[in-house]
Amino acid sequence: MPNRPVLDFWYEFASPYSFLSALRIEALAESADVTLRWRPFLLGPIFAAQGWTTSPFNLYPNKGRYMWRDTARRAGRNGLSIVKPETFPQNSLIAARLALAGREAGWMPAFSKALFRAEFCEGRNIAEEAVLNAALKGAGADPGQAFPASRSEEVKGRLRAEIEYAKSLGIFGAPTFVTQDGELFWGDDRLEEALDWARDGR
Amino acid sequence: MPNRPVLDFWYEFASPYSFLSALRIEALAESADVTLRWRPFLLGPIFAAQGWTTSPFNLYPNKGRYMWRDTARRAGRNGLSIVKPETFPQNSLIAARLALAGREAGWMPAFSKALFRAEFCEGRNIAEEAVLNAALKGAGADPGQAFPASRSEEVKGRLRAEIEYAKSLGIFGAPTFVTQDGELFWGDDRLEEALDWARDGR
Repeated sequence: MPNRPVLDFWYEFASPYSFLSALRIEALAESADVTLRWRPFLLGPIFAAQGWTTSPFNLYPNKGRYMWRDTARRAGRNGLSIVKPETFPQNSLIAARLALAGREAGWMPAFSKALFRAEFCEGRNIAEEAVLNAALKGAGADPGQAFPASRSEEVKGRLRAEIEYAKSLGIFGAPTFVTQDGELFWGDDRLEEALDWARDGR
Repeated sequence: MPNRPVLDFWYEFASPYSFLSALRIEALAESADVTLRWRPFLLGPIFAAQGWTTSPFNLYPNKGRYMWRDTARRAGRNGLSIVKPETFPQNSLIAARLALAGREAGWMPAFSKALFRAEFCEGRNIAEEAVLNAALKGAGADPGQAFPASRSEEVKGRLRAEIEYAKSLGIFGAPTFVTQDGELFWGDDRLEEALDWARDGR
């Protein structure tokens, strides 16, 4: 399919709104005839650069309370129920490196969805090896290969490069959708608009 | 019409997303058979309580750049073009007091819409008397009565009470829509969902 439009899907494993998008983006992209590029990254370094030491949902309690209510409503409309994990935000460093280790092999999307479900449907901690392990297996990946690959300098550098690239695009939150002509759409509620833009242009 | 549902529309005159909602909310509420209560308030004291001395769109430049782009796209879809005023955010104290002075007389919505247009379609400064004057006249109000009323202790106290009430509801941004059963919806992009909730319940 020549010239099929591409949409970059920037997501953070600790982000509830990224979870919502991850579980619905594939069907929508398919209908829109848009190719997705899954791009896991970390918000931590971006938040740190603006002086935040944790999630804004923790720094601003009213905003946090609202977010859990809003995501519950949105999850409900998609037939899901969202659980607030005991730890929030979770440390997503290993998760992001693992996902990037599976970029060429093709299991990155399946692994990401499995991990998001563990975190926000079951309340598991995605920093734990057992949880990561189960998500890898669920995605058809071999943990015995994936973990060592995720610790390689190549994959560590890959994640650093992705974060730098996200910064250079002006990304400040997740999920963010970026079209080939550089248009940014921030938030699960902008997913449909981003796909429209990717397909039809402005 | 007994038991017609009511939706509270909390808005801040300095807020671009409040502008977007103000100019489209009436037609949507009419279709949904929902009665609106226009509730101007100030975000300044709420932002100050969380340590912000100006708008988050100024504190976080990437977020600010994105906001102007996002509001331009949304305005375009509603047949409007949005202008970034020279001063942002604007001082909206007199505007909010004036609007509340017109609550009983009924010109509050028309005045609010006229003022939002001056600010975000024409780039005028809503702290200026001439701009406020024109919006009052456009709404059929008498500036000779409205200005003195806006400076009365009664109206000043009314605004303070509204801000305290907004705080007690957990409001942290604008626009915010609140249903009679206390459900909060934040942002112009939640307007349709808020009207659905007001009409049908959860």
